[in-house]
Amino acid sequence: MTQEYRIEHDTMGEVKVPADALYSAQTQRAVENFPISGKTLEREHIAALAQVKKAAASANEELDVLDAQRAAAIRTAADKVIAGDYDAHFPIDVFQTGSGTSSNMNTNEVLATLANRELEGTDVQVHPNDHVNASQSSNDVFPTSVHVAVANALVKDLQPALDVLATSLEKKAEEFRDIVKSGRTHLMDATPVTLGQEFGGYAAQVRYGIERIDASLPRVTEVPQGGTAVGTGINTPAGFSARVVELLAEQTGLPITEARNHFEAQANRDGLVEVSGQLRTIAYGFMKINNDLRWMGSGPNTGLGELQIPDLQPGSSIMPGKVNPVICEAAIQAAAQVIGNDTTVSLSSTNGAFELNVGIPVMAANLLESVRLLANTSRVMAEKMIDGLTANEERARFLAEASPSIVTPLNKVIGYESAAKIAKYAVAEKVTVKEATIALGFVEDGSLTEEQLDAALDVTTMIGEYR
Amino acid sequence: MTQEYRIEHDTMGEVKVPADALYSAQTQRAVENFPISGKTLEREHIAALAQVKKAAASANEELDVLDAQRAAAIRTAADKVIAGDYDAHFPIDVFQTGSGTSSNMNTNEVLATLANRELEGTDVQVHPNDHVNASQSSNDVFPTSVHVAVANALVKDLQPALDVLATSLEKKAEEFRDIVKSGRTHLMDATPVTLGQEFGGYAAQVRYGIERIDASLPRVTEVPQGGTAVGTGINTPAGFSARVVELLAEQTGLPITEARNHFEAQANRDGLVEVSGQLRTIAYGFMKINNDLRWMGSGPNTGLGELQIPDLQPGSSIMPGKVNPVICEAAIQAAAQVIGNDTTVSLSSTNGAFELNVGIPVMAANLLESVRLLANTSRVMAEKMIDGLTANEERARFLAEASPSIVTPLNKVIGYESAAKIAKYAVAEKVTVKEATIALGFVEDGSLTEEQLDAALDVTTMIGEYR
Amino acid sequence: MTQEYRIEHDTMGEVKVPADALYSAQTQRAVENFPISGKTLEREHIAALAQVKKAAASANEELDVLDAQRAAAIRTAADKVIAGDYDAHFPIDVFQTGSGTSSNMNTNEVLATLANRELEGTDVQVHPNDHVNASQSSNDVFPTSVHVAVANALVKDLQPALDVLATSLEKKAEEFRDIVKSGRTHLMDATPVTLGQEFGGYAAQVRYGIERIDASLPRVTEVPQGGTAVGTGINTPAGFSARVVELLAEQTGLPITEARNHFEAQANRDGLVEVSGQLRTIAYGFMKINNDLRWMGSGPNTGLGELQIPDLQPGSSIMPGKVNPVICEAAIQAAAQVIGNDTTVSLSSTNGAFELNVGIPVMAANLLESVRLLANTSRVMAEKMIDGLTANEERARFLAEASPSIVTPLNKVIGYESAAKIAKYAVAEKVTVKEATIALGFVEDGSLTEEQLDAALDVTTMIGEYR
Amino acid sequence: MTQEYRIEHDTMGEVKVPADALYSAQTQRAVENFPISGKTLEREHIAALAQVKKAAASANEELDVLDAQRAAAIRTAADKVIAGDYDAHFPIDVFQTGSGTSSNMNTNEVLATLANRELEGTDVQVHPNDHVNASQSSNDVFPTSVHVAVANALVKDLQPALDVLATSLEKKAEEFRDIVKSGRTHLMDATPVTLGQEFGGYAAQVRYGIERIDASLPRVTEVPQGGTAVGTGINTPAGFSARVVELLAEQTGLPITEARNHFEAQANRDGLVEVSGQLRTIAYGFMKINNDLRWMGSGPNTGLGELQIPDLQPGSSIMPGKVNPVICEAAIQAAAQVIGNDTTVSLSSTNGAFELNVGIPVMAANLLESVRLLANTSRVMAEKMIDGLTANEERARFLAEASPSIVTPLNKVIGYESAAKIAKYAVAEKVTVKEATIALGFVEDGSLTEEQLDAALDVTTMIGEYR
Repeated sequence: MTQEYRIEHDTMGEVKVPADALYSAQTQRAVENFPISGKTLEREHIAALAQVKKAAASANEELDVLDAQRAAAIRTAADKVIAGDYDAHFPIDVFQTGSGTSSNMNTNEVLATLANRELEGTDVQVHPNDHVNASQSSNDVFPTSVHVAVANALVKDLQPALDVLATSLEKKAEEFRDIVKSGRTHLMDATPVTLGQEFGGYAAQVRYGIERIDASLPRVTEVPQGGTAVGTGINTPAGFSARVVELLAEQTGLPITEARNHFEAQANRDGLVEVSGQLRTIAYGFMKINNDLRWMGSGPNTGLGELQIPDLQPGSSIMPGKVNPVICEAAIQAAAQVIGNDTTVSLSSTNGAFELNVGIPVMAANLLESVRLLANTSRVMAEKMIDGLTANEERARFLAEASPSIVTPLNKVIGYESAAKIAKYAVAEKVTVKEATIALGFVEDGSLTEEQLDAALDVTTMIGEYR
Repeated sequence: MTQEYRIEHDTMGEVKVPADALYSAQTQRAVENFPISGKTLEREHIAALAQVKKAAASANEELDVLDAQRAAAIRTAADKVIAGDYDAHFPIDVFQTGSGTSSNMNTNEVLATLANRELEGTDVQVHPNDHVNASQSSNDVFPTSVHVAVANALVKDLQPALDVLATSLEKKAEEFRDIVKSGRTHLMDATPVTLGQEFGGYAAQVRYGIERIDASLPRVTEVPQGGTAVGTGINTPAGFSARVVELLAEQTGLPITEARNHFEAQANRDGLVEVSGQLRTIAYGFMKINNDLRWMGSGPNTGLGELQIPDLQPGSSIMPGKVNPVICEAAIQAAAQVIGNDTTVSLSSTNGAFELNVGIPVMAANLLESVRLLANTSRVMAEKMIDGLTANEERARFLAEASPSIVTPLNKVIGYESAAKIAKYAVAEKVTVKEATIALGFVEDGSLTEEQLDAALDVTTMIGEYR
Repeated sequence: MTQEYRIEHDTMGEVKVPADALYSAQTQRAVENFPISGKTLEREHIAALAQVKKAAASANEELDVLDAQRAAAIRTAADKVIAGDYDAHFPIDVFQTGSGTSSNMNTNEVLATLANRELEGTDVQVHPNDHVNASQSSNDVFPTSVHVAVANALVKDLQPALDVLATSLEKKAEEFRDIVKSGRTHLMDATPVTLGQEFGGYAAQVRYGIERIDASLPRVTEVPQGGTAVGTGINTPAGFSARVVELLAEQTGLPITEARNHFEAQANRDGLVEVSGQLRTIAYGFMKINNDLRWMGSGPNTGLGELQIPDLQPGSSIMPGKVNPVICEAAIQAAAQVIGNDTTVSLSSTNGAFELNVGIPVMAANLLESVRLLANTSRVMAEKMIDGLTANEERARFLAEASPSIVTPLNKVIGYESAAKIAKYAVAEKVTVKEATIALGFVEDGSLTEEQLDAALDVTTMIGEYR
Repeated sequence: MTQEYRIEHDTMGEVKVPADALYSAQTQRAVENFPISGKTLEREHIAALAQVKKAAASANEELDVLDAQRAAAIRTAADKVIAGDYDAHFPIDVFQTGSGTSSNMNTNEVLATLANRELEGTDVQVHPNDHVNASQSSNDVFPTSVHVAVANALVKDLQPALDVLATSLEKKAEEFRDIVKSGRTHLMDATPVTLGQEFGGYAAQVRYGIERIDASLPRVTEVPQGGTAVGTGINTPAGFSARVVELLAEQTGLPITEARNHFEAQANRDGLVEVSGQLRTIAYGFMKINNDLRWMGSGPNTGLGELQIPDLQPGSSIMPGKVNPVICEAAIQAAAQVIGNDTTVSLSSTNGAFELNVGIPVMAANLLESVRLLANTSRVMAEKMIDGLTANEERARFLAEASPSIVTPLNKVIGYESAAKIAKYAVAEKVTVKEATIALGFVEDGSLTEEQLDAALDVTTMIGEYR
């Protein structure tokens, strides 16, 4: 923006606005009122606001609230904002009025200016409130825009990214299908699994994340549009709500639906809180997967050393040659951010009273950031780490066979208590389970033959059918 | 328990156990190891553990792992524990080994003792590990029992209780359908709504809670049983997993299903984290509803005074005659507990590594408490408060008409900016909106007639179609 | 309680009360109004309520509000409740009116009954409100009782328990002072440390916990007593507030002080929120320590195997001979509970408006549980685990020398980049750092002599001065 | 940056770097490895990193690790970065390696380039690792930089901003000292207070926030510098740690101290978790204050209407003339963000193992954002809202006298139960307390005279001494 100013006015009086700003008085007031974070609305969110305005212009035209000329001009203007050409004209801080009225008015003002440019030369004028905002209120537009933006980000960004990650894990599960390793429960040596089984488990966990989003999506795609100020739909023509939502669904390609109860829909943002809970569940899953991976990659010489994590950058400014599991660490930090954002989103529920929640901008910013973090992290994990993982097959097999828990199949032959004696003896005397079994006389006393013992202790027979 | 002791032994040696305890050495060790909270497993949870043992006995019998006599004795014993006759014999602290092994062994020991009593006079003996725990591991039994107990509590306790609450709210919505009151957004006077619309919104919010549970239930009812130690199903006969889960579903009447991926299912408790997120969403909804109610009931003379909340008890030890919205306060505190419990449950995700999460007992205790709190609170809210609410109809109508926002319908007649002038004038001069409209000359200048003005300002026309 | 009833009355009418209950109508109403959790006030909390009543009786006597006879009878009654003889007569649910009025009235009623028993045979009567509650309100008594109970638990239970834990860790730090092991950063091999240094770090962390409590204690020990209903001290004689607080400090031996601002003190419970934050910081520290310990104890054959954690109980119902780090797991779960409780406590801040927070009972219950959990966990950790830890000295030393990061001292001789080449060569070729240094020609080219190399690579010289 | 590239190398090979970038290979690798959030280090944090490097250069010079020429060049370079001239050369994402090694190396590279420019024309070269990072490791530099940046922001930004806010509140407390209003407990009518008492309470709450920061500051200003890789101080000269910390304190004017235990200090970031807890306590306080203010400002006609909140901007896009408490809403949202950030910070504790926490960058970003949000919010609250508040004195007094709780002083005359009867009668019959007292015969029966009654019911006598 230039340093030049022009004078604009609104219902409260005059305001100095940057000369080349597409917005007007109310936006400028908000810029000045909220010098708090320096963070503005997410790109995705600005586009969603313009989507609502576009759908409203069409519905208003169909229902004779707007003439065809103004409606067309508003739609053209909205398309430009949707495309991202004018994000710089949305300068208001996230920490603003809790209804997002300032950002709704910012959208109204920018679209009115752009529409008036379209109409230059005619004597038709587009007014931010009377035309762009016709049949609408911040109280239905702004939350609707959040639901649209979040649904879009979930469906078009996060779910595909989780699919990339799950696919990457599934490929590794296939690649590692025959690599036997020690299971670990309580961090202690357990019966064997394959590395492929573990990666299959991780892939399943990520795919469940996709499913979790699907399970909550119906309450994200349900929007209050048409309720206007308080849910009663005051100042809307009959049929507006159903039609504007239909148009919004068409425009966005998302399964947007009208609120089943407009009073619930104005007063609460529970659908956002719910899906935020799903995101934090996914985030905790990322923590588990990355923790496992970095422990399996720990070493090279003093750790578990079962996996080789790709070397992406020098790991230490002091310890030469050190390579660290940096993608795991970035991912865990992103997960921690998503979990913290979930606190902000859910806590904002307490910021609702009667017909309005006034914590919507901060809910939007946190949710959209969380989706972005999880989506980018999914892709980075897949491409920069998981695709390049290699197994230390020999070491994994060695450890599998070293686990005293491979005595477990003997339970069925000699009972749990005798098997426990063998395991304890093997650890105490630092001998193999086979040696311990023999030393304790179970072959000698005919409990089982040495061949049976060998068969029972073959780790490849302990990994089950679940591959 | 008596103060007399008997000597028991396990794989680690001898232990002194109360003479009349049904449990044995391992339970006793755990009692001594974990003197932490004094809180033991929830009733529901003990029953679910026995349900798993009962199903396993049957599956084991069918698959020739157990003889009919032992299987029957275990089932009989399990039925007694399910019925709640022996809860006192489950004395282990919630804060125990993170796999719940101690409580699984407690169950094995109690059932073995009870089964052996059944078999008294025969020479058949039931062993806690070799028979009661046959084809099982704590690592599949214990999480399965949590999923079963939680699913049961959700379906049989919480969802019906939410229905009671929603029904109570719906009745009030009907009763209050024609009571016009001022809407409030940002806590400021807005256009009118009916009290019935608000209560309809609350009812919808509660019904969405039922829906939220349904949306997540499929991942709660999916259980790891059959994976045994690490997910490979080691020491289970072919077909065991599918069969034991089928039996468990039959016994409990719940839609229990086998884990689609047994490695995901052993390693993570994400299904519990997810549903905990739904519970906290419901809890935040309770906060909103109760806050609205107590604000509408605030007064009697210095608050909003739109609702009369039933007087249940004297409200102050110093201010005579004071009556407070105590059920609202109890409900909000219960909600705060559920939200805190959700932190504990979700954070416990970080307590998983490789093939096992070791935070399961604390997850179970918190989830089951949360379900109980929400269910009891739902019923108490309905029965002790909402059913008895009465509206201060006259005051509600008076305030509705006093709101300057009733100018809103004039937007369409004289434009937003002129309407704003009227509203500001009315507030500043303490006159009605009608008076302000006339005073500012809008009737005189022919913008609208006085009849049109009266029609436009009739609050009963502003409450929309959404009743 | 018996099943027999007597009839009591209060300002709202008649109530049936168990015939042998010391409490009266208001307590009974509350019992019936709040069938929510089944959890009643903590023992510590009941005692603190009686402490306030005792101090108030004395201050009232001194200031001529109560006669000596009644004051003495109330004090005697309070002493019995403080001693714990009548906890069964405090049956009200934690989830009650948010001011704790019900529990304050419960205390008033029980003390009046006990005082009247003292006065039997005289014609003096003690009234719950007019005498036991004289110069008081629930709004100052109840929060004061929470601050007193929490302060007492912190000072007399948790801080000593943390000292037990720190002392146990310090003893091990001394015992392990010369055991060299590999440091680990990013879970990857780093330069060596001693096991004693690590344990010294844990001890310091625990001691910082004691310090953290001290830092926040002044705002826990600051109490609202004397503010009565709204902070103005209505219905108190001049000087009451200062005197009652002075007496409370004397009676309890705690550094209780009068609120510096009685309006802040009535309206907020920030001192509790603050100290809850300290408890969760301590809890996170417990997670770190226990995670490190169980990783060092992981194995016996497939993990790090540097520490031997005492065997307390059989670890698996299926894998014989398995021993798990069960105290670590119990401790981490207790920590997760404390962290969840902290969410409940801090979130309850939103439950305050104007002159009162109405989330106090749930704050109290969670804080007192958290203190108890941390205190018991500290003692259990020390006595059942840390005191019994032994180091696998040989393996620790072996791993220290296997870490490629021991090349670090060569930075100063040949530069970081050359040192990095050596480390990478050693790992890739599976040779020692010394062998790699020689193989890459750094001795041959005179960069350093073999003796210098040996000296530089001696791990005992890398462990610094900080022991 | 230009689109031109130059080739740089590090221990892992060659990298293409923007031709005009001051950084080199390792920074570039990190830029490419972490395309996650688009968010880079906070300005404050970059400055703190350079502060550490400057202090280290001086300490290294004094202890003969660096020559005077290089040390001076590094200091000059650091001063430029401290001044903020080169922030664009710190492009690495917050979500990076958890030790901040990438940002430490970024600092090393930028400073080396700038120092080499200083030394242009000489044959002295500054190397990022061997000179800028001399006697340091990311593992002590990066956490130290976070503690320095956070301490600086707390002391120089937040504490002064809280003082601005408290002072603004105190001025209003003075202005409002004689405005009597109804107290409210449980949202219900209570005995009177003055508006000044309430504002005095808010001011005290804010001042306690300053005190809370002071209480935790000693553990924020305690830094690990000198511990290098793992706390042992490997590769530092004797005396380095003490000296570098002393210099850091001098340079920054902050009370920076050396870690009392370097192993605690490397392994944990508890000091950050602790102070984050204080910030969230302050944030919850902001919620309370802003909620009270917007409730007192609610209306204009259907709410409490005791306060007039300055009109900053039109409040509704549909309801003309509506003015909303927008600063309150922005403040509450900022508080919600701080509370969510606290979750991220504290949860990151679980991201530590052995000698390093690997969640430091995300802790830093969240803490510094929180401090910034609270500081800016404090100033905005003071300047745009509180300074401009006016009281509706008449309405406040009217409500105070309408509260039935003004019967409270009669407790001492006629007892609590009789007083309760009066209050209930007054509310039921819609008469004043005086009228009710007379109607119920308390004057007639001589309980008190009408003058005594008037005196007892004078609200100005009920507001106590605490002004």
